[in-house]
Amino acid sequence: MKLFTLHEAISSQPRAADFAQIDVPTPACPQGGILVRVVHLSLDPYIGARLRGSHMGEAPPLPGKEPIPGAIVGQVLKSNAAGIAEGDWVQSMEGGWQEISALKAGQFRKIDPARAPLASHAGVLGMPGLTAWAGITQLAKVGEGDTVLVDAAAGPVGGTVGQIARIKGAERVVGIAGGAEKCAIVTETYGFDACIDYKVEGWEDELKKALPDGLSVFFENVSADMAMIALANARTYARGVLCGLAAGYQVKSQDRVPNPLPMGTIIGKRAQLLGLVVYDFYPRWDEFVDEASAWIADGRLAFAEDRVEGLEDAPALFEQLMNGKNRGKAVVTVSPESV
Amino acid sequence: MKLFTLHEAISSQPRAADFAQIDVPTPACPQGGILVRVVHLSLDPYIGARLRGSHMGEAPPLPGKEPIPGAIVGQVLKSNAAGIAEGDWVQSMEGGWQEISALKAGQFRKIDPARAPLASHAGVLGMPGLTAWAGITQLAKVGEGDTVLVDAAAGPVGGTVGQIARIKGAERVVGIAGGAEKCAIVTETYGFDACIDYKVEGWEDELKKALPDGLSVFFENVSADMAMIALANARTYARGVLCGLAAGYQVKSQDRVPNPLPMGTIIGKRAQLLGLVVYDFYPRWDEFVDEASAWIADGRLAFAEDRVEGLEDAPALFEQLMNGKNRGKAVVTVSPESV
Repeated sequence: MKLFTLHEAISSQPRAADFAQIDVPTPACPQGGILVRVVHLSLDPYIGARLRGSHMGEAPPLPGKEPIPGAIVGQVLKSNAAGIAEGDWVQSMEGGWQEISALKAGQFRKIDPARAPLASHAGVLGMPGLTAWAGITQLAKVGEGDTVLVDAAAGPVGGTVGQIARIKGAERVVGIAGGAEKCAIVTETYGFDACIDYKVEGWEDELKKALPDGLSVFFENVSADMAMIALANARTYARGVLCGLAAGYQVKSQDRVPNPLPMGTIIGKRAQLLGLVVYDFYPRWDEFVDEASAWIADGRLAFAEDRVEGLEDAPALFEQLMNGKNRGKAVVTVSPESV
Repeated sequence: MKLFTLHEAISSQPRAADFAQIDVPTPACPQGGILVRVVHLSLDPYIGARLRGSHMGEAPPLPGKEPIPGAIVGQVLKSNAAGIAEGDWVQSMEGGWQEISALKAGQFRKIDPARAPLASHAGVLGMPGLTAWAGITQLAKVGEGDTVLVDAAAGPVGGTVGQIARIKGAERVVGIAGGAEKCAIVTETYGFDACIDYKVEGWEDELKKALPDGLSVFFENVSADMAMIALANARTYARGVLCGLAAGYQVKSQDRVPNPLPMGTIIGKRAQLLGLVVYDFYPRWDEFVDEASAWIADGRLAFAEDRVEGLEDAPALFEQLMNGKNRGKAVVTVSPESV
């Protein structure tokens, strides 16, 4: 079967040319685990950092040998796991860029293919959606009267943040994204009240105008610089969910604090800054999927996909994603849903 | 009557020589307000920033004219206020460095002289104590099993932080202070489990040893550099109360974020950073005094004082305080409690 690995260890932002397709024998079905036909593969920005070995202390995959990591949605080919049968559908964070994954117990969750589109488990019901849900409902506890700002708003985390905030009662939801096309997704598909294009001169003034009473919650996906802009527009007692540093801000000097947030401003605003790592919420994934599937069904939670067919197109789509050129959730359909 | 004002506007750390004693007529009793004989004057580090005009946007006092600001405990000489009679005791944040204060309605709270020592309303029951109470009970919500770290631990905020944390169930309370004498106050008077002297070489290793399981709560009074050391010793999900920047950290370059906290570390630790401004808790002062007076009475809440007698000694004690040379709460007794 086919598998994508790295040609060699990398230390900078991955490009399509860094990935090598190799042929490997189909793995055996693990004791207590399952063998899965990969149907949808999720491409996510954090994988860029993980390939360089700079994500949560996790080792990068062995070049020429181990698959590129990635979350998947797939169908069970063979099962040694209790309660899982051939033909069942699962979601896994450990699937990888390959045609068939061998997953151990604890590495997958069974999903119901009838409740929501299968590919949504790679995005809005997958890790990005769980991230948005955790930040909005569990950390910031958004409710009536909140005004919420989120950046990378056209992405699957940001877009879901705004929509869940609205569902939970937020009065106003504003996004930041790069380019008119992305901003159109944010306001039209995701229904935000406004989206500010940070690539346009004077965008910070536009942001201020879009937040006439300031924000009460911000959800930071991009950088400390963006978080500081959010803080500048924050009301007293604002809550800020610190989720990601997708911009991969480079430390320019040894004695400089990486991704600095100004302590005096945090105090002056009485801000509450809440660090979010989605791993912590994996035990609540089924609860989230249950809640969010209903929102998809009744049309309150939309998602945009940037989908390609065929594993061979994964490297090019990933390079686009790393360059901020995706339009919605990046998904690779590796094999058809029905075979 | 005597009053201390500034010789001229200042832009750096105040020294004793910056203060000028002048003689002014006794003020009239304001409509709806009171005239108060100042008994205890509280000296607090934030006044240093306030005199430079860099505290919460408040204007510095007019040199040669307006008194140096300061909280006071005093006795009512004359009252135009409903419910306040001559001889009653009050606490006020607006008293100032003078013998007699004219206080408007809303600028003072009546206190009960029988429940706790009068001077304690300048410290452990005053603004420093309320700050500690707010951070520990309202923001960090310290309880069973918490391990709490606080710096400037010999001061009236830090010392009270540790003691209230213990009263609320904290398992371990560790302080940071400068010098053996201050550390002795922290462990002996305030009963902390350990106090690390940051003036001793290798103190960061000692701190690590004093927190074998890390901290779950830190209370930052000094600087972003100290907050980063606290974060380095923090357990996952630690809460950090951001209260003060007493070190007055100087911004060294225009493009540098002042008092920077590293966003990546906050995310990685899933830390919750909580900005605290004590003003917000003034409406709950009586509730706090009620609770804390009982702790003083039963011996669970101790306080150390660095007290001088006579208004003329205020400038020298304030210079000492600004140089970190105080031992406990700096209080000036301006006139005797009983006359």
